[in-house]
Amino acid sequence: MSLIVQKFGGSSVRDAQRIKNVAGIIAETYLEGNDVIVVLSAQGDTTDDLIEKAQEINPKASRREMDMLLSTGEQISVALCAMALESMGLPCVSLAAWQVGIKTTGAHSQARIRKIDSERIRSELDQKRIVLVTGFQGINRQGDVTTLGRGGSDTSAVALAAAFHADLCQIYTDVDGVYTTDPRLVPNARKLDEITYDEMLELASLGAQVLHNRSVELAKKYHINMEVVSSLERKPGTKIKEVVKMEKTSIAGVAKDTSIATIALKGLEHAPGVAFQVFNMLSKNGINVDIILQSFGNVDDAKEISFTVSRKDLDDAVKLLTENRQQLRFKELETDDKIGKVSIVGAGLLSNHGMAAKMFEALYNAGINIQMINTSEIKLSVLVHEDDVNKAVKAVHARFFDE
Amino acid sequence: MSLIVQKFGGSSVRDAQRIKNVAGIIAETYLEGNDVIVVLSAQGDTTDDLIEKAQEINPKASRREMDMLLSTGEQISVALCAMALESMGLPCVSLAAWQVGIKTTGAHSQARIRKIDSERIRSELDQKRIVLVTGFQGINRQGDVTTLGRGGSDTSAVALAAAFHADLCQIYTDVDGVYTTDPRLVPNARKLDEITYDEMLELASLGAQVLHNRSVELAKKYHINMEVVSSLERKPGTKIKEVVKMEKTSIAGVAKDTSIATIALKGLEHAPGVAFQVFNMLSKNGINVDIILQSFGNVDDAKEISFTVSRKDLDDAVKLLTENRQQLRFKELETDDKIGKVSIVGAGLLSNHGMAAKMFEALYNAGINIQMINTSEIKLSVLVHEDDVNKAVKAVHARFFDE
Repeated sequence: MSLIVQKFGGSSVRDAQRIKNVAGIIAETYLEGNDVIVVLSAQGDTTDDLIEKAQEINPKASRREMDMLLSTGEQISVALCAMALESMGLPCVSLAAWQVGIKTTGAHSQARIRKIDSERIRSELDQKRIVLVTGFQGINRQGDVTTLGRGGSDTSAVALAAAFHADLCQIYTDVDGVYTTDPRLVPNARKLDEITYDEMLELASLGAQVLHNRSVELAKKYHINMEVVSSLERKPGTKIKEVVKMEKTSIAGVAKDTSIATIALKGLEHAPGVAFQVFNMLSKNGINVDIILQSFGNVDDAKEISFTVSRKDLDDAVKLLTENRQQLRFKELETDDKIGKVSIVGAGLLSNHGMAAKMFEALYNAGINIQMINTSEIKLSVLVHEDDVNKAVKAVHARFFDE
Repeated sequence: MSLIVQKFGGSSVRDAQRIKNVAGIIAETYLEGNDVIVVLSAQGDTTDDLIEKAQEINPKASRREMDMLLSTGEQISVALCAMALESMGLPCVSLAAWQVGIKTTGAHSQARIRKIDSERIRSELDQKRIVLVTGFQGINRQGDVTTLGRGGSDTSAVALAAAFHADLCQIYTDVDGVYTTDPRLVPNARKLDEITYDEMLELASLGAQVLHNRSVELAKKYHINMEVVSSLERKPGTKIKEVVKMEKTSIAGVAKDTSIATIALKGLEHAPGVAFQVFNMLSKNGINVDIILQSFGNVDDAKEISFTVSRKDLDDAVKLLTENRQQLRFKELETDDKIGKVSIVGAGLLSNHGMAAKMFEALYNAGINIQMINTSEIKLSVLVHEDDVNKAVKAVHARFFDE
């Protein structure tokens, strides 16, 4: 007998038919003899409908009251799903986050889980009940309702899996797993049977959009075996765990990100601490910098720093840097928002030089110019012109998976 | 400075415009320097929509899960109303029943309030915040959500008024007060400035449908000054309190009830305890009996008992009595569901014999036959043929109020 946490997203519970389908999956797991904790999101468009109601009344409503409003969505889902299980004659109980005791920090709309009380759920599991818990929400020290922000329900599921030492945390979505790249772009993208936490983190942050990083980070920290699986088709999904098959030689996948822009600071004085000053200032203003390239110019020891920021931060970053031009001592600032990032992700990538060569070769053969390169332990990213991004993904994916 | 509890029903908060209107009323009360606790019902059709969602999934859903589902409705209302107050720059906080600590018995869908914790609300009031509380709901000893059944939000409001020793509990509805009779039937029905708890109880139980009896009983028990007032028009409503103006000489109102039926047991043995046996049996089976008429027949000391039951209970009552005919020793059972009850209600009615005479005279002049009569301290009821009910209300109302 195992303890399994199953999380279903909004589209998986969007109407009565989908809820009955979800109840079927839960029932199957329960009837195999497992203890089951279910985490649900709000139904399909419920959250949007509630936001619209709020907008009509007060477009600048406080986050506290928005959390109070939005948290009803998941409560509706768990109650309805419990009713579906009741109709199948299965013992179950729905619990809101405040009943479970999901304690969070106080930051409304972006709270973080501090701890989860175990008494209530443990007692229900001991009575062989299926426990349905509202995802995405918790309560803070004041006893007020908080919500967890993007990816919140996945995080709730992993946190519950950690608190109850679950054997498996299944994330049910409307895709059937994690793919080697976006299947809409590359039709013969392959579903991965398994992937490491770190690979998943890189893929998610690069735009794979299957799981939010917070949940994967938490799963890594507490060694929770996760599985991304389809709520619509009964077939194996993708397992996310510490270590995958030792014989694995290829990469996990190819990801792209076109939501970035580059900033180049030219004619910088070649003095110690200049780079630190630039990035410290950006960081203090909430602007994250990703790939950084530093080059020495030929004249007067002037140098150049280029880096990428999120496209939505570009205007803020330019304004900030320009205002502090005197202090930062650069001559020119250039930006480029017609770029994109293509990355290969795989555990042990850095120690396998063949991988990088393979990628560069594929891009060269496709006639794609590389503007910048960045590497980490498990990721190799290149910046290319925006128009070349899809072509690059196809070429690199084909080189790694079709040969 | 006073503490005022204001309760707004579902139609008063049914859309953004109505919620803004409600916020205006609350703001006015608050800005006059009062502490304000607001109790809200679910918006307009929300409860019906949620019930429909449940029906689609499981028409026999448990009451526990129904309560979990339905209690989201009031939470949406309080959050939205708080947002409306925020947009007016007023300090406020919405609280669900579990946050307040509205402790109830465990009976789902028909729970009763046991106690209300005072800490959280007191602390919010001390910070000069308007407190918005979900009506209709509480939590039981297990920490599960319960709902209070019909008239639940009114009961929540009065219970809060009692717990915080409020100076006034205002019930805002879409009518502007309590009338001497149904204004749809008698266009010149008058709005009462004030009425006693007991009169209100009789009027409500006789179908005036402004306030549920539970809330009035609670108000009477804790000496809470209530007021029924319109949320749409700014004008005085009807005050409900212990004692009203001493000089009052007329009745409070005329009520009708056409949801009843009579049962007559004929040829009963004239033995002690027969009536007790009949009514005890009905009571044990959840069937309430109202007006009772007992008459001695002429033959063999046989007697007859007639009484009224709710029309919805008629079939059950007949079945029960027929099955126990041997034990109860009656010969015949007759029923009549073509009857109605017309009543006048007024404090001190019984000690003022002129009132009864006035009523009988009005009915006699209108050519209406009286089938049974029943009196209590503050009520005089007659049973008449169903077709005569409206005519009787008009005649009696005219006799008391138009002359």
